Amino acid sequence: MEQQPPVIYLDHAATSWPKPQPVIEAVQHALLYESANPGRGSHRMAVQASRVIFQTRKGLAKLFQVKNPNDIAFAANTTAALNLAIKGFVDSGDHVIATAVEHNAVRRPLEYLKRVLNVQVTYVEADAEGKVSLDHIREAIRPNTRLAIVNHSSNLLGTIQPVEEIAALMRQHGVKLLVDAAQSAGLLPIDVEAMGIDMLAFPGHKGLLGPQGTGGLYIHPSIRLEPHMHGGTGSQSEAPEQPDVRPDRYEAGTLNTPGIAGLGAGVTYVLEETVAAIYEKEWTLTQRMMEGLSAVNGIRLLGPGLGKPRTGIVSFVLKGVDPSEMSFILDQHYGIAVRAGFHCTPLAHESAGTTGTGAIRASVGCFTTEADVDALVTAVQEISKHYE
Amino acid sequence: MEQQPPVIYLDHAATSWPKPQPVIEAVQHALLYESANPGRGSHRMAVQASRVIFQTRKGLAKLFQVKNPNDIAFAANTTAALNLAIKGFVDSGDHVIATAVEHNAVRRPLEYLKRVLNVQVTYVEADAEGKVSLDHIREAIRPNTRLAIVNHSSNLLGTIQPVEEIAALMRQHGVKLLVDAAQSAGLLPIDVEAMGIDMLAFPGHKGLLGPQGTGGLYIHPSIRLEPHMHGGTGSQSEAPEQPDVRPDRYEAGTLNTPGIAGLGAGVTYVLEETVAAIYEKEWTLTQRMMEGLSAVNGIRLLGPGLGKPRTGIVSFVLKGVDPSEMSFILDQHYGIAVRAGFHCTPLAHESAGTTGTGAIRASVGCFTTEADVDALVTAVQEISKHYE
Repeated sequence: MEQQPPVIYLDHAATSWPKPQPVIEAVQHALLYESANPGRGSHRMAVQASRVIFQTRKGLAKLFQVKNPNDIAFAANTTAALNLAIKGFVDSGDHVIATAVEHNAVRRPLEYLKRVLNVQVTYVEADAEGKVSLDHIREAIRPNTRLAIVNHSSNLLGTIQPVEEIAALMRQHGVKLLVDAAQSAGLLPIDVEAMGIDMLAFPGHKGLLGPQGTGGLYIHPSIRLEPHMHGGTGSQSEAPEQPDVRPDRYEAGTLNTPGIAGLGAGVTYVLEETVAAIYEKEWTLTQRMMEGLSAVNGIRLLGPGLGKPRTGIVSFVLKGVDPSEMSFILDQHYGIAVRAGFHCTPLAHESAGTTGTGAIRASVGCFTTEADVDALVTAVQEISKHYE
Repeated sequence: MEQQPPVIYLDHAATSWPKPQPVIEAVQHALLYESANPGRGSHRMAVQASRVIFQTRKGLAKLFQVKNPNDIAFAANTTAALNLAIKGFVDSGDHVIATAVEHNAVRRPLEYLKRVLNVQVTYVEADAEGKVSLDHIREAIRPNTRLAIVNHSSNLLGTIQPVEEIAALMRQHGVKLLVDAAQSAGLLPIDVEAMGIDMLAFPGHKGLLGPQGTGGLYIHPSIRLEPHMHGGTGSQSEAPEQPDVRPDRYEAGTLNTPGIAGLGAGVTYVLEETVAAIYEKEWTLTQRMMEGLSAVNGIRLLGPGLGKPRTGIVSFVLKGVDPSEMSFILDQHYGIAVRAGFHCTPLAHESAGTTGTGAIRASVGCFTTEADVDALVTAVQEISKHYE
């Protein structure tokens, strides 16, 4: 096979790359030997496919401290998991609290529900660093508030929200809490029971190092959602309605067995490395990046300041330089992959004051090196001089 | 890697196996080199991922004679494609015509819409061979009929429905036609324009030989659906509503790039072999299987009779033998993978008169051999003697 292109990959917030070798091997093994349709036949290859899927479910349950692995439903991506959680839970006339740093995967389902079901939505504002305050959330609660949605960590700013405190507040008011762990799964410790998280949507292909096409939703056993996918489950075929049994209820249609096999290997990798060690490594890299970038003339770094907790994301704008142009130069001239634009989170740009321009987002992952970070800093330094 | 288990795989209607080598290589290549997030960054690896996805879209467009590849939206499986088509098109108070041989992936979304939107549904009966008549469909049309849904080929009976004739009838009455090609894509010629198909839902992992976790929906350019997934599309991030541009509108969230890369290789394989040659091969195998099985005492074959068109599915019941037990013996004693049960299509069992018991389904694929077929026939013969 052809050689790996020389690239300094700083776009981990979009998807992690490279994948650990065991992930690639697990996908291949599934394609070769476990490619029957799990749960759709009693023959041994179908049973083997079911086993692979259950192993991944068990790994995820261990990672998120979920007692019963069947309370985790697989989904094609975080967006699918969030659509299931939001549309499956919210009823006509409900009020939902979300934050101003939510991704469009939360905002667009909510705007859809506003339009078709007269659902009311409050987007609680965030401070300039992207953090929401408990007071603001408390003030947003109404008698008909049934759900609060919090982005565990902003995909633009890397800010970490106080999920436990928000969960405690919501519990006092009988409001369920959905956490979007798109940027935190595999990077921040998540214990759904201890933290009081009622639903947790997560991607398989970011911090969990699995292939694209994977993700899932943890659903507390006390919550019964309307399925988002209605269809065949291989169980209770004769019933016109989706069965109640988990995870079948939320997993209609053929699952992505090879992807889920790869995700299992990714989760195993994360469990072995430990979430704490991965966070420590990524945080140290972000601090190095921020220190280096701070010295660049005309730069403005977004999100939490130096020394504060943050996930592996450093977004910035450089005065007088269009972010798209900057990312194009970084890619073409330096072989550095970052992302420019709005990152599907327009409201977060309002918080950060970058609505007009968007921003450059550089994001590290668990295979990023100090040399990668330094290459970006040097490149941005050089580009800035060109524009002075 | 460990050796391939010795298995005679006759469960192609659930998923095809093995996958052609180029499919496995394409998945691996995508995991290694094209694993950036397509459409979510301007850097070269993201562009390369977008290119891979567009190549697959182009291949599918060629296969189904779709003029603009962007009228095809990828989905996680046929179920997801059908959920998008049905829930995205049908409004409160509409009447929908479906057939009695629909899969639960059609029936359960319809039953959901009956429950929440007062949608009316008529399931047009099929004859004992699983075929629906144009007259019965015509009689079902009401002033508020907006959509008809037809299973191109029954996943229990292998019956092929007269899609072109149904399409012509629907067009006369201003009714849109959705075709479920779960069992026909890659096996029967499909020309959406010539056949008058308004929407076509298809799997990636059956006749198209791609990995599980893939599928899609063709949507005629005149049809505008409510998206099933609301979320980020990488385009028009600032808009609270899903953009109109295709395919973005229907593809929120990160796509399954490795799966879609594999699907592309599968489609290429099918195009090279030709759909006509694959059908001829599979049909010949089903005839051989039917002839062999007919000689077994107490057997009843379901679906179209010998010599008639059918897809690669042969379902049967053996008097006095529980289908689950039969499939268990076939698997454990003979290493033959078939499927027992209701196959997510309870109404088709009413047509076939097998509601109480379910049936055994043996289904061939493009790598099935005559020896595989003969092994099944011999095994069923032996088992039947044991039960006499």
